[in-house]
Amino acid sequence: MTDESRIWTAALIVVGDEILSGRTQDKNIAQVATWLGVQGIRLREVRVVPDDMVAIIEAVNALRARNDYLFTTGGIGPTHDDITVDAVAAALGVDVVIHPKARAILESYYATRGGLNDARLRMARVPAGADLIENRVSGAPGIRIGNVFLMAGVPGITAQMLDGLTGQLEGGLPLLSTTVGCWVAESEIADLLRETEKAFDGVQIGSYPFFREGKTGANFVIRSVSDTTLKACAHALEEGLAAIGRFPVAGGI
Amino acid sequence: MTDESRIWTAALIVVGDEILSGRTQDKNIAQVATWLGVQGIRLREVRVVPDDMVAIIEAVNALRARNDYLFTTGGIGPTHDDITVDAVAAALGVDVVIHPKARAILESYYATRGGLNDARLRMARVPAGADLIENRVSGAPGIRIGNVFLMAGVPGITAQMLDGLTGQLEGGLPLLSTTVGCWVAESEIADLLRETEKAFDGVQIGSYPFFREGKTGANFVIRSVSDTTLKACAHALEEGLAAIGRFPVAGGI
Repeated sequence: MTDESRIWTAALIVVGDEILSGRTQDKNIAQVATWLGVQGIRLREVRVVPDDMVAIIEAVNALRARNDYLFTTGGIGPTHDDITVDAVAAALGVDVVIHPKARAILESYYATRGGLNDARLRMARVPAGADLIENRVSGAPGIRIGNVFLMAGVPGITAQMLDGLTGQLEGGLPLLSTTVGCWVAESEIADLLRETEKAFDGVQIGSYPFFREGKTGANFVIRSVSDTTLKACAHALEEGLAAIGRFPVAGGI
Repeated sequence: MTDESRIWTAALIVVGDEILSGRTQDKNIAQVATWLGVQGIRLREVRVVPDDMVAIIEAVNALRARNDYLFTTGGIGPTHDDITVDAVAAALGVDVVIHPKARAILESYYATRGGLNDARLRMARVPAGADLIENRVSGAPGIRIGNVFLMAGVPGITAQMLDGLTGQLEGGLPLLSTTVGCWVAESEIADLLRETEKAFDGVQIGSYPFFREGKTGANFVIRSVSDTTLKACAHALEEGLAAIGRFPVAGGI
């Protein structure tokens, strides 16, 4: 029997000087968040940290203890700035070892690409006791140890690793959402939003204003694990908007 | 006299269920990071937290103490889910008050837009002792208290607030960067990268692989506060690549 009220949570650590310098626009937060949502797991916190052992270790230990799952992206490649495996191993208090299956995967992948050198062999290093996460793109696998999942920094490779994990992690009821849009200043209807949220148990309404085509509008995102509650709340909000002469747009603007 | 070796650091807290759900792609991390870089301030850590008092308070207190500056984005609008002002005030142990100048700004802005109601007045609430950060777009100002800067969630409004702050924060030497690209697998030249980095004091080289037009390549981003060192290091890397028959592309690919 599943406890339907159990909420499964995850955290994400994005390892990367390139994100913190502003040079690279992060894509992994939205990608991992969306994937987790489908698995019925809620992303509760993200930290972006530099390529620095102390910073990664601190974040790993803070977040793995208080979440069901911890994901990392970045820092598992072949070069000197790739230190995530070492940092996670240090955080867990285990050695770094060469995983025989990872070595075999890399040997086969690089057989026609110049062979396996020392740098490439770095990508077979894992915290002792880890399992591999399949990656069909570049050969180098992701790594799972306990509740910690190490993924690539390149978003396309992380996508493949997430694909390899789909359906394998226990989660709860997915958090469903629906959007109601309206050409209204959110500040005009703040009371309606607050009261509509209060009237439905376990519902959150987020208000996301925008300015387009010279006009002020907002999308109201309603979230609940119950489809029935979601629809009832959206209906109540639409009625409330219509009652003050504002035309709601189901699905958002 | 300025201590040129002093490194100024900042942290950023992105407040937002919409980022953690994957619904909205964050733009503020790259925007704030880039702006800080120009001010000679290094972004050291980012946390994305939910619209939750406890989570925001914890992050504010962890990050404001160990950085010169702390920025937040999100949660300063007029609706019930906007709680960043309350959370920062609680973290600092001060009351929330109406800022008279913020009230005046909002009164003037809304004079031709339906008037100042209770929800709109929420945007004049600040932690006691705070100053305002100008915002020419929507009237509602950003907030500065001590070393904490509260900015909007909407990236275009945050851009205006950053513009209002430009040149006002003390920083150090900006971290300069230059990029060398090459159609090479980073795993082929990992030793060259490590040794080139070691040969130049205070330089970091980041390696960012990609797969394009059916070929493997990488950009190597060299960072230093010294333009001379930067150029010498880039030159050494280019020579090293050429010596093994790989053609370097100055400026990156």
